Amino acid sequence: MTTKIAIVMAMQAEADPLIENLRFCHRPDLVPPGLPFRFYTTVYGQQDLLLVTSGKDPRFQVDNVATVPAALMAYQAIERCAPSLLINCGTAGGIKAAGAMIGDVYLSKDKICFHHRRIPIPGFWEYGVGSYPVIDSAAIAAALGLKRGIISTGDSLDLCGEDLSLIEQHGAIVKDMEAAAIAWVCYTCKVPMLAVKSITDLIDKAAPTADQFLDNLALASSNLQRQTVAILDFLQNNECDQL
Amino acid sequence: MTTKIAIVMAMQAEADPLIENLRFCHRPDLVPPGLPFRFYTTVYGQQDLLLVTSGKDPRFQVDNVATVPAALMAYQAIERCAPSLLINCGTAGGIKAAGAMIGDVYLSKDKICFHHRRIPIPGFWEYGVGSYPVIDSAAIAAALGLKRGIISTGDSLDLCGEDLSLIEQHGAIVKDMEAAAIAWVCYTCKVPMLAVKSITDLIDKAAPTADQFLDNLALASSNLQRQTVAILDFLQNNECDQL
Repeated sequence: MTTKIAIVMAMQAEADPLIENLRFCHRPDLVPPGLPFRFYTTVYGQQDLLLVTSGKDPRFQVDNVATVPAALMAYQAIERCAPSLLINCGTAGGIKAAGAMIGDVYLSKDKICFHHRRIPIPGFWEYGVGSYPVIDSAAIAAALGLKRGIISTGDSLDLCGEDLSLIEQHGAIVKDMEAAAIAWVCYTCKVPMLAVKSITDLIDKAAPTADQFLDNLALASSNLQRQTVAILDFLQNNECDQL
Repeated sequence: MTTKIAIVMAMQAEADPLIENLRFCHRPDLVPPGLPFRFYTTVYGQQDLLLVTSGKDPRFQVDNVATVPAALMAYQAIERCAPSLLINCGTAGGIKAAGAMIGDVYLSKDKICFHHRRIPIPGFWEYGVGSYPVIDSAAIAAALGLKRGIISTGDSLDLCGEDLSLIEQHGAIVKDMEAAAIAWVCYTCKVPMLAVKSITDLIDKAAPTADQFLDNLALASSNLQRQTVAILDFLQNNECDQL
Protein backbone atom coordinates (compact mmCIF):
# COMPACT_ATOMS: atom_id res chain seq x y z
CA MET A 1 0.00 0.00 0.00
CA THR A 2 1.22 3.49 -0.81
CA THR A 3 2.18 5.74 2.09
CA LYS A 4 2.08 9.52 1.86
CA ILE A 5 4.96 11.25 3.59
CA ALA A 6 5.60 15.00 3.76
CA ILE A 7 9.17 16.25 4.22
CA VAL A 8 9.62 19.85 5.40
CA MET A 9 13.05 21.49 5.15
CA ALA A 10 13.92 25.12 5.80
CA MET A 11 17.04 25.56 3.66
CA GLN A 12 17.46 24.76 0.00
CA ALA A 13 21.13 23.79 0.56
CA GLU A 14 19.98 21.19 3.08
CA ALA A 15 17.37 19.80 0.67
CA ASP A 16 19.27 19.77 -2.65
CA PRO A 17 21.18 16.49 -2.09
CA LEU A 18 17.91 14.72 -1.25
CA ILE A 19 16.06 16.32 -4.18
CA GLU A 20 18.79 15.09 -6.53
CA ASN A 21 19.16 11.58 -5.10
CA LEU A 22 15.43 10.77 -5.02
CA ARG A 23 14.78 12.60 -8.30
CA PHE A 24 12.19 14.95 -6.87
CA CYS A 25 10.25 16.94 -9.46
CA HIS A 26 9.79 20.70 -8.87
CA ARG A 27 6.06 21.46 -8.67
CA PRO A 28 5.36 25.22 -8.82
CA ASP A 29 1.72 24.28 -9.54
CA LEU A 30 1.31 23.11 -5.92
CA VAL A 31 2.49 26.35 -4.27
CA PRO A 32 -0.34 28.14 -2.45
CA PRO A 33 -1.05 31.69 -3.72
CA GLY A 34 1.34 34.36 -2.47
CA LEU A 35 3.71 32.05 -0.61
CA PRO A 36 7.44 31.82 -1.45
CA PHE A 37 7.77 28.08 -0.77
CA ARG A 38 9.06 25.45 -3.22
CA PHE A 39 7.14 22.19 -3.58
CA TYR A 40 8.61 18.95 -4.93
CA THR A 41 7.12 15.48 -5.40
CA THR A 42 8.48 12.03 -6.16
CA VAL A 43 7.49 8.40 -5.84
CA TYR A 44 10.02 6.33 -3.90
CA GLY A 45 9.08 2.63 -3.81
CA GLN A 46 5.69 2.50 -2.12
CA GLN A 47 6.00 6.07 -0.83
CA ASP A 48 4.42 9.19 -2.31
CA LEU A 49 6.75 11.95 -1.12
CA LEU A 50 6.00 15.67 -0.96
CA LEU A 51 8.97 17.87 -0.07
CA VAL A 52 8.62 21.56 0.78
CA THR A 53 11.42 24.10 1.17
CA SER A 54 10.98 27.66 2.39
CA GLY A 55 12.07 29.60 -0.73
CA LYS A 56 14.02 32.85 -0.72
CA ASP A 57 13.29 36.20 0.85
CA PRO A 58 13.04 38.51 -2.19
CA ARG A 59 14.82 41.39 -0.44
CA PHE A 60 17.82 39.58 1.03
CA GLN A 61 18.04 36.41 -1.11
CA VAL A 62 18.28 34.11 1.91
CA ASP A 63 16.10 31.12 2.80
CA ASN A 64 12.93 31.87 4.79
CA VAL A 65 14.25 30.13 7.89
CA ALA A 66 12.86 30.03 11.46
CA THR A 67 9.48 29.20 12.93
CA VAL A 68 6.97 31.45 11.16
CA PRO A 69 7.55 30.18 7.59
CA ALA A 70 8.10 26.64 8.95
CA ALA A 71 4.61 26.51 10.46
CA LEU A 72 3.03 27.71 7.23
CA MET A 73 5.06 25.18 5.22
CA ALA A 74 3.97 22.36 7.49
CA TYR A 75 0.30 23.31 7.30
CA GLN A 76 0.38 23.68 3.53
CA ALA A 77 2.16 20.33 3.14
CA ILE A 78 -0.49 18.64 5.30
CA GLU A 79 -3.32 20.37 3.43
CA ARG A 80 -1.87 19.34 0.06
CA CYS A 81 -1.19 15.64 0.71
CA ALA A 82 -2.76 14.52 4.05
CA PRO A 83 0.39 12.61 4.98
CA SER A 84 0.52 9.70 7.41
CA LEU A 85 3.89 11.06 8.59
CA LEU A 86 5.59 14.44 8.42
CA ILE A 87 9.39 14.44 8.62
CA ASN A 88 11.20 17.69 9.40
CA CYS A 89 14.78 17.30 8.19
CA GLY A 90 17.41 19.94 8.77
CA THR A 91 20.67 20.98 10.26
CA ALA A 92 20.97 21.96 13.92
CA GLY A 93 23.24 22.75 16.82
CA GLY A 94 24.24 20.02 19.26
CA ILE A 95 25.38 19.94 22.87
CA LYS A 96 28.92 18.58 23.02
CA ALA A 97 28.69 17.88 26.76
CA ALA A 98 25.74 15.56 26.04
CA GLY A 99 27.75 13.65 23.41
CA ALA A 100 26.84 15.47 20.18
CA MET A 101 29.48 15.66 17.45
CA ILE A 102 29.65 17.57 14.15
CA GLY A 103 27.96 15.51 11.42
CA ASP A 104 25.90 13.35 13.82
CA VAL A 105 22.33 12.75 12.68
CA TYR A 106 19.80 12.80 15.53
CA LEU A 107 16.21 11.57 15.58
CA SER A 108 13.62 13.36 17.71
CA LYS A 109 12.90 11.69 21.04
CA ASP A 110 9.98 12.14 23.48
CA LYS A 111 9.08 15.81 22.82
CA ILE A 112 9.97 19.00 20.96
CA CYS A 113 10.05 22.27 22.95
CA PHE A 114 10.53 26.00 22.36
CA HIS A 115 13.29 27.80 24.26
CA HIS A 116 12.60 31.38 23.11
CA ARG A 117 8.95 31.69 24.17
CA ARG A 118 8.80 32.94 27.76
CA ILE A 119 5.25 33.82 28.88
CA PRO A 120 5.30 33.90 32.70
CA ILE A 121 1.54 33.51 33.28
CA PRO A 122 0.14 30.14 34.47
CA GLY A 123 -0.98 28.04 31.50
CA PHE A 124 0.66 30.39 29.01
CA TRP A 125 4.09 29.34 30.29
CA GLU A 126 3.42 25.68 29.46
CA TYR A 127 1.85 26.70 26.13
CA GLY A 128 4.99 28.69 25.31
CA VAL A 129 7.29 25.77 26.04
CA GLY A 130 5.20 23.54 23.78
CA SER A 131 6.47 20.00 24.53
CA TYR A 132 4.83 18.56 21.44
CA PRO A 133 4.78 14.78 20.88
CA VAL A 134 6.81 12.93 18.25
CA ILE A 135 6.70 9.30 17.09
CA ASP A 136 8.74 6.70 18.96
CA SER A 137 11.97 6.60 16.96
CA ALA A 138 13.70 3.87 18.99
CA ALA A 139 13.39 1.11 16.38
CA ILE A 140 14.59 3.34 13.53
CA ALA A 141 17.53 4.60 15.58
CA ALA A 142 18.54 1.07 16.60
CA ALA A 143 18.34 -0.24 13.04
CA LEU A 144 20.33 2.63 11.54
CA GLY A 145 22.71 3.33 14.42
CA LEU A 146 21.44 6.88 14.90
CA LYS A 147 21.41 8.92 18.09
CA ARG A 148 18.17 10.27 19.56
CA GLY A 149 17.52 13.39 21.59
CA ILE A 150 15.05 15.97 22.79
CA ILE A 151 14.97 18.93 20.38
CA SER A 152 14.56 22.55 21.46
CA THR A 153 13.65 25.28 18.96
CA GLY A 154 14.33 29.00 18.93
CA ASP A 155 14.12 31.73 16.29
CA SER A 156 17.75 32.81 16.76
CA LEU A 157 20.92 31.14 15.50
CA ASP A 158 22.73 32.29 18.63
CA LEU A 159 21.58 31.88 22.22
CA CYS A 160 20.92 34.35 25.02
CA GLY A 161 21.25 33.28 28.66
CA GLU A 162 17.50 32.68 28.98
CA ASP A 163 17.55 30.42 25.89
CA LEU A 164 20.40 28.32 27.30
CA SER A 165 18.66 27.96 30.63
CA LEU A 166 15.45 26.68 28.98
CA ILE A 167 17.36 24.29 26.69
CA GLU A 168 18.92 22.82 29.81
CA GLN A 169 15.55 22.61 31.60
CA HIS A 170 14.08 20.78 28.59
CA GLY A 171 16.91 18.22 28.69
CA ALA A 172 17.53 18.95 25.01
CA ILE A 173 20.61 17.74 23.11
CA VAL A 174 19.66 19.31 19.77
CA LYS A 175 18.90 23.00 19.15
CA ASP A 176 17.23 24.04 15.90
CA MET A 177 15.14 26.88 14.44
CA GLU A 178 12.00 25.17 13.09
CA ALA A 179 11.03 21.83 14.65
CA ALA A 180 8.73 23.06 17.45
CA ALA A 181 6.67 25.24 15.09
CA ILE A 182 6.21 22.28 12.74
CA ALA A 183 5.45 20.05 15.73
CA TRP A 184 2.71 22.46 16.84
CA VAL A 185 1.07 22.21 13.43
CA CYS A 186 1.38 18.41 13.42
CA TYR A 187 -0.03 18.25 16.94
CA THR A 188 -3.02 20.43 16.10
CA CYS A 189 -3.64 18.59 12.80
CA LYS A 190 -3.06 15.14 14.39
CA VAL A 191 -0.29 14.18 11.97
CA PRO A 192 2.53 12.00 13.39
CA MET A 193 5.90 13.75 13.26
CA LEU A 194 9.55 12.77 13.20
CA ALA A 195 12.46 15.22 13.16
CA VAL A 196 15.85 14.34 11.67
CA LYS A 197 18.60 16.81 12.58
CA SER A 198 22.19 16.79 11.37
CA ILE A 199 24.66 18.64 13.59
CA THR A 200 26.54 21.61 12.07
CA ASP A 201 27.73 23.26 15.27
CA LEU A 202 28.25 22.64 18.97
CA ILE A 203 26.53 25.30 21.04
CA ASP A 204 28.80 24.72 24.05
CA LYS A 205 31.99 25.21 22.03
CA ALA A 206 33.92 28.48 22.03
CA ALA A 207 33.81 29.08 18.21
CA PRO A 208 30.93 31.31 17.04
CA THR A 209 27.86 29.32 15.97
CA ALA A 210 27.62 31.15 12.63
CA ASP A 211 31.22 30.20 11.64
CA GLN A 212 30.75 26.54 12.65
CA PHE A 213 27.42 26.44 10.82
CA LEU A 214 28.85 27.72 7.53
CA ASP A 215 31.95 25.49 7.79
CA ASN A 216 29.94 22.31 8.35
CA LEU A 217 26.74 22.86 6.34
CA ALA A 218 27.84 20.74 3.35
CA LEU A 219 28.97 17.78 5.50
CA ALA A 220 25.82 17.91 7.62
CA SER A 221 23.54 18.19 4.56
CA SER A 222 25.22 15.19 2.95
CA ASN A 223 24.81 13.08 6.10
CA LEU A 224 21.23 14.31 6.45
CA GLN A 225 20.42 13.18 2.91
CA ARG A 226 21.96 9.74 3.37
CA GLN A 227 20.18 9.06 6.64
CA THR A 228 16.85 10.44 5.43
CA VAL A 229 16.90 7.93 2.56
CA ALA A 230 17.83 5.18 5.04
CA ILE A 231 14.86 6.19 7.23
CA LEU A 232 12.50 6.09 4.23
CA ASP A 233 13.87 2.62 3.39
CA PHE A 234 13.33 1.48 6.97
CA LEU A 235 9.74 2.78 6.99
CA GLN A 236 9.12 0.98 3.70
CA ASN A 237 10.43 -2.35 4.93
CA ASN A 238 9.06 -2.37 8.47
CA GLU A 239 5.59 -2.18 9.95
CA CYS A 240 5.19 1.05 11.89
CA ASP A 241 1.96 1.02 13.86
CA GLN A 242 2.33 4.68 14.84
CA LEU A 243 1.61 5.94 11.32
CA MET B 1 -18.47 49.75 -3.20
CA THR B 2 -17.96 47.02 -0.63
CA THR B 3 -14.49 46.69 0.91
CA LYS B 4 -13.20 43.43 2.32
CA ILE B 5 -11.21 43.83 5.53
CA ALA B 6 -9.65 41.04 7.59
CA ILE B 7 -9.09 41.58 11.31
CA VAL B 8 -6.64 39.26 13.07
CA MET B 9 -6.56 39.15 16.89
CA ALA B 10 -4.61 36.74 19.08
CA MET B 11 -6.69 36.75 22.26
CA GLN B 12 -10.41 36.11 22.59
CA ALA B 13 -10.65 38.58 25.52
CA GLU B 14 -9.24 41.30 23.24
CA ALA B 15 -11.75 40.46 20.49
CA ASP B 16 -14.97 39.90 22.46
CA PRO B 17 -15.94 43.58 22.87
CA LEU B 18 -15.55 44.11 19.10
CA ILE B 19 -17.44 40.89 18.26
CA GLU B 20 -20.31 42.04 20.45
CA ASN B 21 -20.41 45.66 19.28
CA LEU B 22 -20.29 44.90 15.54
CA ARG B 23 -22.53 41.81 15.92
CA PHE B 24 -20.04 39.43 14.39
CA CYS B 25 -21.43 35.97 13.59
CA HIS B 26 -19.37 32.93 14.64
CA ARG B 27 -18.50 30.91 11.51
CA PRO B 28 -17.10 27.46 12.37
CA ASP B 29 -17.78 26.51 8.73
CA LEU B 30 -14.89 28.77 7.62
CA VAL B 31 -12.22 27.22 9.88
CA PRO B 32 -9.58 25.35 7.85
CA PRO B 33 -9.26 21.63 8.71
CA GLY B 34 -7.29 20.84 11.85
CA LEU B 35 -6.75 24.43 12.98
CA PRO B 36 -7.97 25.76 16.35
CA PHE B 37 -8.86 29.26 15.11
CA ARG B 38 -12.26 30.96 15.44
CA PHE B 39 -13.68 32.77 12.41
CA TYR B 40 -16.35 35.49 12.56
CA THR B 41 -18.00 37.59 9.85
CA THR B 42 -20.17 40.67 9.78
CA VAL B 43 -21.21 43.42 7.41
CA TYR B 44 -20.49 46.91 8.76
CA GLY B 45 -21.77 49.63 6.43
CA GLN B 46 -19.95 49.08 3.14
CA GLN B 47 -17.40 46.75 4.75
CA ASP B 48 -17.38 42.96 4.65
CA LEU B 49 -15.43 42.06 7.78
CA LEU B 50 -13.75 38.74 8.57
CA LEU B 51 -12.35 38.46 12.10
CA VAL B 52 -10.09 35.60 13.18
CA THR B 53 -9.00 34.76 16.72
CA SER B 54 -6.44 32.12 17.64
CA GLY B 55 -8.61 29.70 19.64
CA LYS B 56 -7.52 27.77 22.71
CA ASP B 57 -4.70 25.33 23.27
CA PRO B 58 -6.55 22.11 24.19
CA ARG B 59 -4.01 21.14 26.83
CA PHE B 60 -3.68 24.40 28.75
CA GLN B 61 -6.89 26.25 27.84
CA VAL B 62 -5.06 29.46 26.92
CA ASP B 63 -5.20 31.43 23.67
CA ASN B 64 -2.78 30.36 20.94
CA VAL B 65 -0.76 33.57 21.22
CA ALA B 66 2.60 34.53 19.64
CA THR B 67 3.95 34.47 16.12
CA VAL B 68 3.46 30.91 14.86
CA PRO B 69 -0.36 30.77 15.14
CA ALA B 70 -0.57 34.46 14.13
CA ALA B 71 1.11 33.79 10.78
CA LEU B 72 -1.22 30.90 10.05
CA MET B 73 -4.26 32.99 11.06
CA ALA B 74 -3.19 35.81 8.76
CA TYR B 75 -2.63 33.49 5.80
CA GLN B 76 -5.94 31.72 6.31
CA ALA B 77 -7.78 35.03 6.62
CA ILE B 78 -6.21 36.25 3.37
CA GLU B 79 -6.96 32.97 1.61
CA ARG B 80 -10.60 33.04 2.77
CA CYS B 81 -11.51 36.63 1.87
CA ALA B 82 -8.76 38.26 -0.27
CA PRO B 83 -8.96 41.46 1.80
CA SER B 84 -7.91 44.89 0.56
CA LEU B 85 -6.63 45.56 4.10
CA LEU B 86 -5.61 43.36 7.02
CA ILE B 87 -5.79 44.93 10.47
CA ASN B 88 -3.98 43.26 13.37
CA CYS B 89 -5.59 44.51 16.58
CA GLY B 90 -4.28 43.57 19.98
CA THR B 91 -2.81 44.59 23.27
CA ALA B 92 0.87 45.36 23.65
CA GLY B 93 3.61 46.74 25.83
CA GLY B 94 4.68 50.37 25.48
CA ILE B 95 7.83 52.32 26.24
CA LYS B 96 7.10 54.91 28.91
CA ALA B 97 10.26 56.89 28.16
CA ALA B 98 8.97 57.37 24.59
CA GLY B 99 5.63 58.68 25.86
CA ALA B 100 3.46 55.54 25.98
CA MET B 101 0.78 55.33 28.68
CA ILE B 102 -1.49 52.50 29.84
CA GLY B 103 -4.63 52.44 27.68
CA ASP B 104 -3.09 54.39 24.75
CA VAL B 105 -4.00 53.04 21.34
CA TYR B 106 -1.14 53.13 18.82
CA LEU B 107 -1.24 52.77 15.05
CA SER B 108 1.68 51.11 13.24
CA LYS B 109 4.13 53.55 11.67
CA ASP B 110 6.83 52.98 9.01
CA LYS B 111 7.76 49.33 9.70
CA ILE B 112 7.22 46.31 11.92
CA CYS B 113 10.31 44.42 13.15
CA PHE B 114 11.20 41.29 15.11
CA HIS B 115 13.37 41.65 18.21
CA HIS B 116 13.80 37.97 19.10
CA ARG B 117 15.26 36.67 15.81
CA ARG B 118 19.04 37.02 15.90
CA ILE B 119 20.76 35.33 12.93
CA PRO B 120 24.27 36.82 12.72
CA ILE B 121 25.01 35.88 9.09
CA PRO B 122 24.92 38.60 6.37
CA GLY B 123 21.49 38.73 4.73
CA PHE B 124 19.99 36.42 7.35
CA TRP B 125 20.41 39.16 9.97
CA GLU B 126 18.27 41.59 7.96
CA TYR B 127 15.79 38.80 7.17
CA GLY B 128 15.50 38.06 10.91
CA VAL B 129 14.79 41.67 11.80
CA GLY B 130 12.07 41.81 9.15
CA SER B 131 11.22 45.53 8.85
CA TYR B 132 7.98 44.85 7.00
CA PRO B 133 5.98 47.72 5.49
CA VAL B 134 2.66 49.01 6.80
CA ILE B 135 0.18 51.50 5.33
CA ASP B 136 0.67 55.20 6.03
CA SER B 137 -1.51 55.75 9.10
CA ALA B 138 -0.90 59.51 9.44
CA ALA B 139 -4.35 60.63 8.25
CA ILE B 140 -6.19 58.12 10.45
CA ALA B 141 -4.10 59.05 13.49
CA ALA B 142 -4.67 62.78 12.91
CA ALA B 143 -8.42 62.36 12.47
CA LEU B 144 -8.85 60.16 15.56
CA GLY B 145 -6.17 61.66 17.80
CA LEU B 146 -4.21 58.44 18.02
CA LYS B 147 -0.49 57.99 18.57
CA ARG B 148 1.71 56.20 16.04
CA GLY B 149 4.85 54.16 16.55
CA ILE B 150 7.20 51.53 15.22
CA ILE B 151 6.17 48.10 16.50
CA SER B 152 8.62 45.38 17.48
CA THR B 153 7.51 41.77 17.92
CA GLY B 154 8.88 38.92 20.02
CA ASP B 155 7.56 35.54 21.12
CA SER B 156 8.05 36.26 24.83
CA LEU B 157 5.95 38.39 27.16
CA ASP B 158 9.09 39.40 29.04
CA LEU B 159 12.32 40.70 27.55
CA CYS B 160 15.91 39.51 27.73
CA GLY B 161 18.78 41.98 27.34
CA GLU B 162 19.22 41.14 23.64
CA ASP B 163 15.49 41.80 23.03
CA LEU B 164 15.67 45.23 24.69
CA SER B 165 18.74 46.16 22.71
CA LEU B 166 17.04 45.32 19.39
CA ILE B 167 13.82 47.13 20.36
CA GLU B 168 15.95 50.20 20.97
CA GLN B 169 17.81 49.77 17.67
CA HIS B 170 14.48 49.51 15.81
CA GLY B 171 13.30 52.77 17.39
CA ALA B 172 10.16 50.94 18.51
CA ILE B 173 7.65 52.39 20.99
CA VAL B 174 5.31 49.38 20.99
CA LYS B 175 6.27 45.79 21.81
CA ASP B 176 3.87 42.97 20.94
CA MET B 177 3.86 39.21 20.26
CA GLU B 178 2.27 38.85 16.80
CA ALA B 179 2.47 41.86 14.47
CA ALA B 180 5.73 41.06 12.65
CA ALA B 181 4.64 37.51 11.82
CA ILE B 182 1.38 38.85 10.39
CA ALA B 183 3.30 41.58 8.58
CA TRP B 184 5.54 38.95 6.96
CA VAL B 185 2.47 37.15 5.62
CA CYS B 186 0.94 40.42 4.38
CA TYR B 187 4.24 41.39 2.77
CA THR B 188 4.62 38.08 0.96
CA CYS B 189 0.93 38.05 -0.10
CA LYS B 190 0.98 41.76 -1.06
CA VAL B 191 -1.90 42.69 1.28
CA PRO B 192 -1.74 46.17 2.89
CA MET B 193 -1.49 45.98 6.67
CA LEU B 194 -2.28 48.19 9.62
CA ALA B 195 -1.62 47.29 13.27
CA VAL B 196 -3.68 48.77 16.12
CA LYS B 197 -2.14 48.16 19.55
CA SER B 198 -3.60 49.10 22.92
CA ILE B 199 -1.09 49.43 25.75
CA THR B 200 -1.50 47.10 28.75
CA ASP B 201 1.96 47.47 30.26
CA LEU B 202 5.03 49.65 30.22
CA ILE B 203 8.16 47.62 29.56
CA ASP B 204 10.45 50.19 31.16
CA LYS B 205 8.51 50.20 34.45
CA ALA B 206 9.61 48.22 37.48
CA ALA B 207 6.38 46.18 37.91
CA PRO B 208 6.45 42.73 36.26
CA THR B 209 4.98 42.77 32.74
CA ALA B 210 2.67 39.82 33.49
CA ASP B 211 1.05 41.63 36.48
CA GLN B 212 0.56 44.87 34.53
CA PHE B 213 -0.82 42.94 31.57
CA LEU B 214 -3.46 41.11 33.63
CA ASP B 215 -4.39 44.29 35.56
CA ASN B 216 -4.95 46.35 32.42
CA LEU B 217 -6.26 43.84 29.87
CA ALA B 218 -9.94 44.83 30.25
CA LEU B 219 -9.25 48.59 29.95
CA ALA B 220 -6.94 48.10 26.97
CA SER B 221 -9.42 45.76 25.21
CA SER B 222 -12.24 48.26 25.69
CA ASN B 223 -10.15 51.11 24.23
CA LEU B 224 -9.02 48.83 21.43
CA GLN B 225 -12.60 48.04 20.50
CA ARG B 226 -13.68 51.68 20.51
CA GLN B 227 -10.78 52.84 18.36
CA THR B 228 -11.02 49.90 15.95
CA VAL B 229 -14.63 50.86 15.22
CA ALA B 230 -13.53 54.49 14.78
CA ILE B 231 -10.85 53.35 12.30
CA LEU B 232 -13.41 51.32 10.34
CA ASP B 233 -15.68 54.39 10.27
CA PHE B 234 -12.80 56.55 9.06
CA LEU B 235 -11.93 54.07 6.28
CA GLN B 236 -15.57 54.01 5.26
CA ASN B 237 -15.90 57.76 5.05
CA ASN B 238 -12.55 58.65 3.49
CA GLU B 239 -10.77 57.71 0.29
CA CYS B 240 -7.71 55.65 1.09
CA ASP B 241 -5.59 55.21 -2.04
CA GLN B 242 -3.29 52.73 -0.31
CA LEU B 243 -5.92 49.98 -0.22
